[in-house]
Amino acid sequence: MNYKMIIHTTGQIIGVGAICLLLSAGVSLVYAEVEGIWLLLSALFSGVLFFISRFFKPKDTVFFAKEGLVTVALSWIILSLIGALPFYLSKEIPDYIDCFFETVSGFSTTGATILSDPQVLSKGNMFWRSLTHWIGGMGVLVLLVALLPSVSGRSIHMLRAEMPGPVVGKLVPKAKQTARILYIIYIVLTLLQFILLLAGGMPVYESAVHTLGTAGTGGFGVYAESIASYSPYLQWVITIFMFLFGINFNLFFFILIKRFKLAFTSQELWTYIGIVLVSTVLIALNISNMYPTFEETLRHSAFQVSSYISTTGYTTVNSNTWPAFSKMILIVLMFIGACAGSTAGGLKVSRIVLIAKSVRNRIFNVVHPRTVKAVRFEGKSVDDATIFSVLSYLAIYVFCFIVLLLILSLDNFNFETNFTAAASTFNNVGPFFGQLSNYADYSVISKIAMSFAMLLGRLEIYPILILFLPATWKK
Amino acid sequence: MNYKMIIHTTGQIIGVGAICLLLSAGVSLVYAEVEGIWLLLSALFSGVLFFISRFFKPKDTVFFAKEGLVTVALSWIILSLIGALPFYLSKEIPDYIDCFFETVSGFSTTGATILSDPQVLSKGNMFWRSLTHWIGGMGVLVLLVALLPSVSGRSIHMLRAEMPGPVVGKLVPKAKQTARILYIIYIVLTLLQFILLLAGGMPVYESAVHTLGTAGTGGFGVYAESIASYSPYLQWVITIFMFLFGINFNLFFFILIKRFKLAFTSQELWTYIGIVLVSTVLIALNISNMYPTFEETLRHSAFQVSSYISTTGYTTVNSNTWPAFSKMILIVLMFIGACAGSTAGGLKVSRIVLIAKSVRNRIFNVVHPRTVKAVRFEGKSVDDATIFSVLSYLAIYVFCFIVLLLILSLDNFNFETNFTAAASTFNNVGPFFGQLSNYADYSVISKIAMSFAMLLGRLEIYPILILFLPATWKK
Repeated sequence: MNYKMIIHTTGQIIGVGAICLLLSAGVSLVYAEVEGIWLLLSALFSGVLFFISRFFKPKDTVFFAKEGLVTVALSWIILSLIGALPFYLSKEIPDYIDCFFETVSGFSTTGATILSDPQVLSKGNMFWRSLTHWIGGMGVLVLLVALLPSVSGRSIHMLRAEMPGPVVGKLVPKAKQTARILYIIYIVLTLLQFILLLAGGMPVYESAVHTLGTAGTGGFGVYAESIASYSPYLQWVITIFMFLFGINFNLFFFILIKRFKLAFTSQELWTYIGIVLVSTVLIALNISNMYPTFEETLRHSAFQVSSYISTTGYTTVNSNTWPAFSKMILIVLMFIGACAGSTAGGLKVSRIVLIAKSVRNRIFNVVHPRTVKAVRFEGKSVDDATIFSVLSYLAIYVFCFIVLLLILSLDNFNFETNFTAAASTFNNVGPFFGQLSNYADYSVISKIAMSFAMLLGRLEIYPILILFLPATWKK
Repeated sequence: MNYKMIIHTTGQIIGVGAICLLLSAGVSLVYAEVEGIWLLLSALFSGVLFFISRFFKPKDTVFFAKEGLVTVALSWIILSLIGALPFYLSKEIPDYIDCFFETVSGFSTTGATILSDPQVLSKGNMFWRSLTHWIGGMGVLVLLVALLPSVSGRSIHMLRAEMPGPVVGKLVPKAKQTARILYIIYIVLTLLQFILLLAGGMPVYESAVHTLGTAGTGGFGVYAESIASYSPYLQWVITIFMFLFGINFNLFFFILIKRFKLAFTSQELWTYIGIVLVSTVLIALNISNMYPTFEETLRHSAFQVSSYISTTGYTTVNSNTWPAFSKMILIVLMFIGACAGSTAGGLKVSRIVLIAKSVRNRIFNVVHPRTVKAVRFEGKSVDDATIFSVLSYLAIYVFCFIVLLLILSLDNFNFETNFTAAASTFNNVGPFFGQLSNYADYSVISKIAMSFAMLLGRLEIYPILILFLPATWKK
């Protein structure tokens, strides 16, 4: 283990955190809030840690997969521990575990909250809460790689660990360039949504918060009723952008460099579109007697579908009152998630496609034992190692989910509550069904378990899991 | 497709069904019930079908895997369609779909019922209902192979299709001998339980019904309160036999031929024992304040654990009132199921062990990418093809389960009800949690879906699934 290198890199990530905290303190300053002092102090504290880490100059910058994963996991945990400070110091969230839960929920782009009303937060702290979504969405390490002047061979391991999906495609040969392109697309889409929300009459501050929450597919909002009180236009804009931020960013890049065919023949994209359309129609039919007009029925259906599959978690209605079939579709969407290489959580559409294709071949093989068929995806044949790793991922996913369920059930809430709370945090969605309206009533143990579940979900299990593996720490 | 051969074999299986119906009519005769006439008529009808099938003399007795699977699937469906007749003709269950559901539930050893009180059944019909458990437990084709004077090369394909578990071990080189040995062990264990129940003062008829229900890990009983009203001795006897019938029958064979080491070093056995012990202790601790004595707490915990993991489904208490943690453990046990090569349903312990080991290797591989470790199970190293097929099975399992959940949710019962009803039928358990006390209130569509789920679970998915595959029926 190259400990110096791990400390050095983690320190740099904390430095990025310091800049973001400083930015949020700036928002406090604009609104003349005294609470900004806690953001400033947290930024200073991060800055001090950053400078201390500078003393751990690694002699050797060689990084193996293991070290990349450990660095990613540790830096996300430390960033969340520090990011929780402004909420705790300002006493806006009195319990530190709650602050940590809320911050992990932010960085992991979950949007699960322990607050019954986010209005208890000052404007600076609320901005910071939403900024964690934006940073966590594309990845703090990806940002670091994009910003750093020199990047060594270590970066690709860390990018792989932080970017969701079964296979990380490098857009261009250099990791640094890839990271920059991704962030540029991310910033452009974010600005576009911000402008469209402003154009619909949403106040500047609320537009900023909701844009950051949509772009990161997070879901933290300004009001307890989420997006319910906004105009149909604003709800449609957010519907469309939740959908867009669930698309593989590689495709936006292909469009940018005018390779339209590559972008529009993506199997993952069309499967994603198909799932969204079918789910929207099925739910609209199922809830058609609940709303006065066709437009309203369709809007609520499309909004919730887009929100759950992209694992954002914004809502326009209380879908807990919807019929069981609609709720079941939303629960399935939570697990599917959106496309790989997007800011969304869940299993990812590409994994579902690969699993479905491999399963179809397997069934075909039972009927015709002597015929061997290869799985093809995105125009290429997929090797057995990839299929094997995707199937293994599903198995590990199920295992982790069951452990989480067993821990949550100790709190004795009903099955629907526990199951959807586990699904929502593990898949980085946010809202859940059942007997509770937010996560505050869960015990400390459950909150810590769900915090880890959010990190497991966001970092796709392995980086967090290997932290607990003795083999990781052996020579 | 060798259609003549399929019809011929299916006819023979219907012949076995005719004998069993005749036996049940005999029970009616003993108790001087006029309802026995319907059992007799159903037996005659089966007999006629059997004689018609004799005319389809196949020229060619060669059987491929595909034909074996189709024969198993078709014969189970037809047997259930015919087996439902006595309930329908006697009007003891007025609706034919309900009769079909109840019969599939019997053959598949599920024990899920649409009756609020089984006492509405005459003694002959109730015996028939329990006899389906016993026949379905070890397998009707296995019985056929054991009984037939001459057995061709086709039998091993059908045995494989009917016997649960990732790998079917042949005890002896010949399929016929294997089938006979299995049935002899089955009969001896069944008789042993019958005697022990009689010794505890349970009436002869009730002892017979409960023994058939335990041996097949089915769960159909005599009373609505299942086993609740019996003495602690009788409850312990059933606890132990539910556990025993969940053990791989190969191990009993090893004990029989005095190869004790082979029997007692089985990893699957010890994992099974381990899961049972840990679950019993955890639930006992969780419910310790609900019952007056330590013995009663332990008895109810052990009984329910043994019942759920062996997928029998007998109960001594209404565990729906237990705390969420205990219920969650029982739900997990439903999915695990007992050992391969037993009469139990579920995923099977051996699959869970193989998945866990392969996942552990996969995680280890993330940390040490260049080290290749083979999965070892029962003293042998497992090849990649087996691991791959087990992981694929898990994926197909999850897919089927989600489809079933979506169909059930159309009935708009709550999530706990739908989830546990789906889990209970798919894993061949029987009872479920939530807002309903039995399956009668589900819609016709849901009942048909659950009937297929029970068959999918009992025959381990592929035989039923390929019936709906066009490739199966093509030349």
